[in-house]
Amino acid sequence: MSSSEGEPQLPNRTSEIRKDTVFGRWVVFSPARSRRPSDFKSKNPNPTSNHPTSCPFCIGRESECAPEIFRVPPSTPDWTIRVIENLYPALRRDLNPPDTGSDQAVGACRVTGFGFHDVVIETPYHPITLSDLEPQAVGEVLLVYVERVQQLKALGTLKYVQVFKNHGAAAGASMTHSHSQIMGIPVIPPSVTTRLSCMKEIFDSTGKCSICDLQSDQNLMINSSTHFYAIAPFAASYAFEIWIVPREHSSYFHELDRAKAMDLGGLLKLMLQKLAKQLNNPPFNFVIHTAPFDLSPSCVPYSHWFLQIVPHLGTVAGFELGTGCYINPIFPEDAAKVLREVDG
Amino acid sequence: MSSSEGEPQLPNRTSEIRKDTVFGRWVVFSPARSRRPSDFKSKNPNPTSNHPTSCPFCIGRESECAPEIFRVPPSTPDWTIRVIENLYPALRRDLNPPDTGSDQAVGACRVTGFGFHDVVIETPYHPITLSDLEPQAVGEVLLVYVERVQQLKALGTLKYVQVFKNHGAAAGASMTHSHSQIMGIPVIPPSVTTRLSCMKEIFDSTGKCSICDLQSDQNLMINSSTHFYAIAPFAASYAFEIWIVPREHSSYFHELDRAKAMDLGGLLKLMLQKLAKQLNNPPFNFVIHTAPFDLSPSCVPYSHWFLQIVPHLGTVAGFELGTGCYINPIFPEDAAKVLREVDG
Repeated sequence: MSSSEGEPQLPNRTSEIRKDTVFGRWVVFSPARSRRPSDFKSKNPNPTSNHPTSCPFCIGRESECAPEIFRVPPSTPDWTIRVIENLYPALRRDLNPPDTGSDQAVGACRVTGFGFHDVVIETPYHPITLSDLEPQAVGEVLLVYVERVQQLKALGTLKYVQVFKNHGAAAGASMTHSHSQIMGIPVIPPSVTTRLSCMKEIFDSTGKCSICDLQSDQNLMINSSTHFYAIAPFAASYAFEIWIVPREHSSYFHELDRAKAMDLGGLLKLMLQKLAKQLNNPPFNFVIHTAPFDLSPSCVPYSHWFLQIVPHLGTVAGFELGTGCYINPIFPEDAAKVLREVDG
Repeated sequence: MSSSEGEPQLPNRTSEIRKDTVFGRWVVFSPARSRRPSDFKSKNPNPTSNHPTSCPFCIGRESECAPEIFRVPPSTPDWTIRVIENLYPALRRDLNPPDTGSDQAVGACRVTGFGFHDVVIETPYHPITLSDLEPQAVGEVLLVYVERVQQLKALGTLKYVQVFKNHGAAAGASMTHSHSQIMGIPVIPPSVTTRLSCMKEIFDSTGKCSICDLQSDQNLMINSSTHFYAIAPFAASYAFEIWIVPREHSSYFHELDRAKAMDLGGLLKLMLQKLAKQLNNPPFNFVIHTAPFDLSPSCVPYSHWFLQIVPHLGTVAGFELGTGCYINPIFPEDAAKVLREVDG
C-alpha cells in the first residue's frame, strides 16, 4: 500500500454528515478530492535525523534542564525516562490555587494561572522516537504518566490532568527530542464537560456507555490486543484519527496497572508505526481523555478513558473555527481498512 | 512599533486563566515566553506576489470555474465580485436534505451530506487582497454575503450558514486569489449550540446580552466606527484575535443594511491592515458568528452576531485537542494596546 502505482482506489462514497457519541460533534465526510490512500501522505513529514549539538533533554545534560521530579530507574545516572518541570510552564505551581467552585461561575471569570506543567523525556537518546522503543519501554513511559498523574491527584488542588504528546514542529513540539507533557489544571476543561454531558445523555437514553459500545463495529476496527483495541471512530474529526480503547469499562487512566500498560505499549507502538509508514511520518498529537478527579459515583457508568491519536494532515480553517464541525476527507471505515492492511 | 529596536516591552504579567462569556471557554494566558510585540510576528507570512499564470478566479477565465450563482454588477463582463459554486464542495446541493429533527437525535447519527458550498471571488484582479480594496468595496463584498445568505435562507432546507474567509495556505486557503466561502448546512453546528447556551445562561442570570456588554471595557477596545467597534476579547483563545461587534443588538448578520455594511467595510479593512502591519502579513481566518435560521423569539434577547478575526500565529496542539482550552501568549489588553497604536 505504500506505493501509489497500482494502488487500489478508495471506495466511491457520497458525502455524509455524522454525529459522534462521545463529544456530540458533527463531522462532514467529503471524499470528493482524495481517491487513493497515498493522496493523504504528509507533505510536511517529521525529519528523522536533525540531532542538534546542544539538546538539554539528552543524557549527560541534565543540569541544563528545569528541576527533575523523578527518574526511572530512580537514583541512577543511567536513566531511561525522566520527568522534569517545564522551563516555560503555561501554568505555574508557585501561585495560589483558585477557589474550588470557580469553574461554575456564571459570566466572565478569571482565576490565577495556578497549575502544573511537566515534561516526560521518553528516552535518553536523541535519535530515538517513542515508536522506536520496544513495546515494554513504551509501556514504561505509560506507567510514568500514571505515577505522575497519581502524584498530582494527591495534591488535592487540581481538577483534571491532561497527558499529551506533540510530535513534530507542525504538531506543536518545540523540542525534537522525544517527549510528552502532563498538565495539571485547577478547573474542569470545556471538552471534558461536553464529553461527559454527551455520554450521560446517551447512557440515560440507552443504558450503554458510548465507549464500551464502540467495539461492535468491525468495519472500524484496526487492531486489538489482550486488553485494548484500536479503531477509526465512526465520526472521526480528523483523517486517520485513531482511538485506543480499554476493553474493560474504566473511568480513570491513572488506575492502569503494569500488565495493561505493557499491553497498551505494544498497541500504541503499532499504531504509531502504521501511521508513520502509511502517511510519510506525519507530525501527530496523542492525548489521553480521562475523567476529572472529583467524578461523582453516578457518572462512573458512562465515563470511560481512551487515548486519541491525531496525525496532522490538514489545516483547521474558517469553517471549523466558526462551526466546531470538522471536514474529514476520508471515511473512517476506509481509513481503518488502510491501517489494518499496512504492516507495523 | 514595527521595529524591535527600542521597542517597548509588554507589561510583566502573571499567568491567568479566564473564562469567556460567549463560548464559555477557559483560556490560559501564559506570557512567560514573549516580551515584545515583534516577538509575535508571523514566521510564515503570506507571499504577496505569486500570481500563477492560470488562475480560474481571474477576470476572463470564468468558463474554467464551477457554475456562477450571481455577479456584481449583474450581467456585465466587467464584474467586481462573483459568487460561484465550489468545484470541490464539502456539502452537495444535489442530495436530499435530511429530516429536520436529525440534529436532536441521541446517539450515533448520520445524515446525507446535503448542503451548499459557495465561493465569493472578492476582486477580478489576482494581486489584490481584501484589505487592498477601498472601504466601500469591502462593504460591497459584505453585501454579497448578505444577499447569498438571504437566498440560502429562502430555500427552507438549511439551519445555519457559515460565512468565512481563509487567507494564506497555512490558514486553509487552497487558492491564492482573494476569496471567501459560504457554507449552508442542514444541522445546527455544535459551536452555535454551545454559544447560544452560554449566552442564555448569562442572560438568565444577569439580564444582559454578553455581546452588548463587551463595549464596557475600554482596555480591550481597538477602534470603533459609527455602527461597530473592534475589540480584543477578554478571554481571546488566539493571540491578537479580534472581534468586530455591531453596537446595536442584532441576531442576524443577514439583516445588515447598506449603510452599516459600508461602515463595517471600513473597520474590517482597518483591522486587516493593522494585523498585516504589526504581525508581518500573517495567514488569517475570519468567520461570521450569527444565529441559526429557526431562532425562537425567546432567544433573540441574547443572540447577537459578530465577526471574529484570527491570525494564524501558533499551532493547535495536544493540550488544546484534549481539553478544548487554549493557551494564549499575550493578554488581550496588551494586544489591544499594540493594535490601537499601530497605523492602519
